[in-house]
Amino acid sequence: MDLCRVIGTVWATVKVDTLSGYRLLVVQPLSHDLKESGLPVVAVDTVSAAPGQLVYIVKSREASKALEERFNPVDAAIVGIVDEVRTSSGPLFRR
Amino acid sequence: MDLCRVIGTVWATVKVDTLSGYRLLVVQPLSHDLKESGLPVVAVDTVSAAPGQLVYIVKSREASKALEERFNPVDAAIVGIVDEVRTSSGPLFRR
Amino acid sequence: MDLCRVIGTVWATVKVDTLSGYRLLVVQPLSHDLKESGLPVVAVDTVSAAPGQLVYIVKSREASKALEERFNPVDAAIVGIVDEVRTSSGPLFRR
Amino acid sequence: MDLCRVIGTVWATVKVDTLSGYRLLVVQPLSHDLKESGLPVVAVDTVSAAPGQLVYIVKSREASKALEERFNPVDAAIVGIVDEVRTSSGPLFRR
Amino acid sequence: MDLCRVIGTVWATVKVDTLSGYRLLVVQPLSHDLKESGLPVVAVDTVSAAPGQLVYIVKSREASKALEERFNPVDAAIVGIVDEVRTSSGPLFRR
Repeated sequence: MDLCRVIGTVWATVKVDTLSGYRLLVVQPLSHDLKESGLPVVAVDTVSAAPGQLVYIVKSREASKALEERFNPVDAAIVGIVDEVRTSSGPLFRR
Repeated sequence: MDLCRVIGTVWATVKVDTLSGYRLLVVQPLSHDLKESGLPVVAVDTVSAAPGQLVYIVKSREASKALEERFNPVDAAIVGIVDEVRTSSGPLFRR
Repeated sequence: MDLCRVIGTVWATVKVDTLSGYRLLVVQPLSHDLKESGLPVVAVDTVSAAPGQLVYIVKSREASKALEERFNPVDAAIVGIVDEVRTSSGPLFRR
Repeated sequence: MDLCRVIGTVWATVKVDTLSGYRLLVVQPLSHDLKESGLPVVAVDTVSAAPGQLVYIVKSREASKALEERFNPVDAAIVGIVDEVRTSSGPLFRR
Repeated sequence: MDLCRVIGTVWATVKVDTLSGYRLLVVQPLSHDLKESGLPVVAVDTVSAAPGQLVYIVKSREASKALEERFNPVDAAIVGIVDEVRTSSGPLFRR
């Protein structure tokens, strides 16, 4: 899974039918020191995440396993909200 | 899913049979501030997207779930046209 | 799918049995202005592509869908030869 | 599989139900000279790895094969703890 | 598939049961001029490759298709030893 920060919301009227009803958030992957790095990802939100929160996402086919209706063209889903990231030198992040 | 801008169209006469009848667009992945970044992707268009529009694509095996006939060698499909991307500091994009 | 240019051929005597009989080409992914970019890919040729040609490839599990015998350890296949790439400012490539 | 070093632990109260009970570690991919490189990955620990250890992870759909209950939204799992990495010029790493 | 050079061997006592009995090699992806580039990969060896050899690997789910027992948490396998890479300007590599 990938550590990401929620940075925005996506609105789309025209979309594939099977994507209706999902909340789509823009999340930004993070480096080991929690700096934003790489390209953002549009992920289905399954845990009611809010902008600014640290989350982890699952990608590829596994993402659809996080949804109730599994036959969807979805390749990224937020599956957890991070409370804390702890390293050997102490907490790196605390919610 | 990945935020992309539609930048072109691909024409191909010689191709795998099962790819006939699909409209192929060239889309360019975007960074968090919507700048073009990384390598372009050739994606099947399922939502009648137009050049210049902001879209999101689904990749890998999940792409074929966006098509009626699912047994196709397709690893990228446009599944939504973006109306708006909103961040905590306001709209980043409005169609 | 990814836009690539065919840059070479791979010969291998020692290989997994199920890979016998496939023609393997080295293809180089291209940027939006068709410059070579990133690492090359060894792809199964299903459309009789020739060195120098612009093609698009399908990757991951979807690649095996392009082959007659589908149970093969193949993660990249050339599925089309590009005739033309057209952008809003005109043709970017013509065969 | 990817060579990684375990760099931390992730705690999350709010998460997808099917992810309960798994220990999640933050691992950092390594270059050929074992320098940390690229973005960290949140991986399910199946081998009781400890911070600082060198491990290898499996990604994508194959990760769920490492778990007893396979229908989980998991795309990365630690599947081995490295004792030694040996190159032609001698051991690169020894536990 | 990806062109790689075999650069080392990985030893691991603690690992997922289903990975026992496989020989794991460290391979380094190569650029179009066969320079080492990007992060190394730990791949199951199915063709008795030796350090220094040029090989091609298959990744993701397709890797397990190269193994006799297919239900394994494996996402990379060496499936061929390269004899020659030939470009339009002549041989780039000969074993």
